[in-house]
Amino acid sequence: MSIYEKHVFVCVSGKTCPTQGSEAVWQALRDEVKACGKLDAIRVNKSGCLAQCGHGPMVVVYPEQVWYGRVTVEDAPKIVHDHLLGDAPVERLRYVKAKSTVS
Amino acid sequence: MSIYEKHVFVCVSGKTCPTQGSEAVWQALRDEVKACGKLDAIRVNKSGCLAQCGHGPMVVVYPEQVWYGRVTVEDAPKIVHDHLLGDAPVERLRYVKAKSTVS
Repeated sequence: MSIYEKHVFVCVSGKTCPTQGSEAVWQALRDEVKACGKLDAIRVNKSGCLAQCGHGPMVVVYPEQVWYGRVTVEDAPKIVHDHLLGDAPVERLRYVKAKSTVS
Repeated sequence: MSIYEKHVFVCVSGKTCPTQGSEAVWQALRDEVKACGKLDAIRVNKSGCLAQCGHGPMVVVYPEQVWYGRVTVEDAPKIVHDHLLGDAPVERLRYVKAKSTVS
C-alpha cells in the first residue's frame, strides 16, 4: 500500500521551468485536485530540477512514471480529470526523452 | 520507458523535515549516487512537503513507491547500495502510514 494513489511532481527549479510558469502549473494542478475533493489521494508536490531543462514546465506522475512537458495552466484540468482521476494519460502532453539528448 | 530507473524524493519542506536534517540526507543520497557513477539512472530530488510530518526526514522512491522515515545521513549508503542499485529495499527504515493517522 502506498501513501498516495497518484503522486505528482512539478519541477519548480533549474534553469528553465521557473521561467516558464511552473509555479502556476503546480498551483493549478493542486487547486483542481482540491476542487475535486481528492487531496487525500492525490499529492501534487513541487520538486527540484528534473534535469529536462528546456522542455518544461515538466510534470511527472508516479507510480506510473508518466512524464509531461510544456504543461500549461490550461492543461491542468485535463491532466487531473483524464489521468489522475480517470487513469487515462493525456497523450498530447506526453514527454519522451530523445535518446540523443541523454546526458 | 521512463527517464530514470529510480527517482528519489526527499522532503525538504513542511513543518518538521527541514528541522530534522533532511537537506543533509538529500545531499548524502545524491553524493553516494554520484560516487557510484549512477547520476544518469538515479535522480535524487528535493521535494515539497510530503505531508507525513513528524516521521521524517521522509524519503520516497519511485516507481516502486517505497517510503522511508527517520532517514539519517548514515543511512544513505545502505539505501543507495541495497535498494537503488540492488533493488532490495531497506526494511528497517520503511515507513508505513498508520490508518488512524490518515488525514
